[in-house]
Amino acid sequence: MIALLLALSMQAAAPAAPVTVQPADPLPADWVTIPDDEVLVMTLAGGGTVTVRLAAGYAPAHVGNIRRLAAARWWDAGGSVYRVQDNYVAQWGDATEKKPLPEGVVANPPAEYEWTGGAAPVAKLTRRDPYAEWAGYSADGWPLAGSGTATWLPHCYGMVGVARDLAPSTGSGGDLYTAIGHAPRALDRNIAVVGRVIEGIERLSVLPRGTGDLGFYKTEGERTAIVSVRLASDLPAAERPHYQYRATANPRFTAWIATRENRTPPFFVVPAGGADICNAMPPVRRMPTP
Amino acid sequence: MIALLLALSMQAAAPAAPVTVQPADPLPADWVTIPDDEVLVMTLAGGGTVTVRLAAGYAPAHVGNIRRLAAARWWDAGGSVYRVQDNYVAQWGDATEKKPLPEGVVANPPAEYEWTGGAAPVAKLTRRDPYAEWAGYSADGWPLAGSGTATWLPHCYGMVGVARDLAPSTGSGGDLYTAIGHAPRALDRNIAVVGRVIEGIERLSVLPRGTGDLGFYKTEGERTAIVSVRLASDLPAAERPHYQYRATANPRFTAWIATRENRTPPFFVVPAGGADICNAMPPVRRMPTP
Repeated sequence: MIALLLALSMQAAAPAAPVTVQPADPLPADWVTIPDDEVLVMTLAGGGTVTVRLAAGYAPAHVGNIRRLAAARWWDAGGSVYRVQDNYVAQWGDATEKKPLPEGVVANPPAEYEWTGGAAPVAKLTRRDPYAEWAGYSADGWPLAGSGTATWLPHCYGMVGVARDLAPSTGSGGDLYTAIGHAPRALDRNIAVVGRVIEGIERLSVLPRGTGDLGFYKTEGERTAIVSVRLASDLPAAERPHYQYRATANPRFTAWIATRENRTPPFFVVPAGGADICNAMPPVRRMPTP
Repeated sequence: MIALLLALSMQAAAPAAPVTVQPADPLPADWVTIPDDEVLVMTLAGGGTVTVRLAAGYAPAHVGNIRRLAAARWWDAGGSVYRVQDNYVAQWGDATEKKPLPEGVVANPPAEYEWTGGAAPVAKLTRRDPYAEWAGYSADGWPLAGSGTATWLPHCYGMVGVARDLAPSTGSGGDLYTAIGHAPRALDRNIAVVGRVIEGIERLSVLPRGTGDLGFYKTEGERTAIVSVRLASDLPAAERPHYQYRATANPRFTAWIATRENRTPPFFVVPAGGADICNAMPPVRRMPTP
């Protein structure tokens, strides 16, 4: 199997243990534990789980709603994955559109699609992005894109957004989707991005594509039921999964970006000299067991 | 269901019938039938088919091999989809790596990764691509990317490439893959791109992800067997599927590009002012029945 393994080995998740420290290697302290109340665990019928890191600092009103919906167990009774469109999104929530929102959930929060001012990106990619003047990273491990004045979270594979109706609707957060194909970046600045799937996206990406318009399932029986959605902080301590993001404001991360922009021999013949942000997503991992 | 349908309706495959002709609407003559010997039909166990348009004019040696492999029914006995890596590729061919190549198949064709000179793109996107100086379209409906001197087929979702070992291997064409996630554009100029899946990619994109390194299945039983791979021109005339690409060298297509670069209200609040080539793939359709 050697040849086939080599054939496309450049995207290996786990390189062989390096003999010497490389400039792009993180220090142990570069891995920062994500707070339990930023980790949302969705369990699907059949037992699979999908874990989302919430962008609490970037879309606080929508994330506040999501936390309240999880606390109220709003998705647990009747929630489902009801739409899967190939090369686009998997979407879940209340397919009936009739379920009342719990106390404290704002039906139509402010449009948290982009922001002005605030912290600058701590690292940037080399080339211009087709959807932005620049693309880069926040200090706390989020991908960013921006214009001269605005900054936003880009719609990369696995990023989670809030489904909404026509403006002025911004979506409550009860219906969410994640990108399961080429990044649908035209949605940037038009929808609230509230998180990123950090584990288990394959539970969604392998689901049968819906055959109705826009990938909606035509029948209720095709949907995948949601068993529960919980913040990790609402789980018993022993059951909480722990994740870490890689800190970006350091020269090791800058070196890592360079490795994404110019892949190396022996496999690569021509390095690209650049990358798009969705092919250079900031690393996240499970916290190692001590 | 109105709200949910509207929620992400901007990527609808089939817009409502227009009341008036729009500048981006194709004329009937803009749809050009793809020759039968450029259409490759792969039937998988379970009955699903995946149809590939071959880039015969862009990677002629590799496509010549693929045609000979199909004529020899090389994939039909023992061929399988043996690797599916989430957000990357589905790969098929001979998992044993032991099957002899048929007479006339060149084990290591020239590296058809890019070309210099030749026809210029007939239409281009507005913004610079992170992986190329420009991105655009051939007259015959292929996406293109290029530097000042070279042109190549970009690794967008659904594009088909030839798996290979380390250079100087270029791959025979017996093992192929297609992108099923965010476009792995770092592979551009490093691999022969030989086609595009034009129907049935969801047969591959929903397959279980392999749990071995790089998404290889750990056991033979996880693979999906290939029943047959045939050129449409080798099928009985009555059984041939027919497809058409949309011609690009006309002002209607230029207007279509603009619609991809700037999505419109009422859903969109902020148009992007640009698009990447993989979010603006040239349209292909089944030939309508007369």
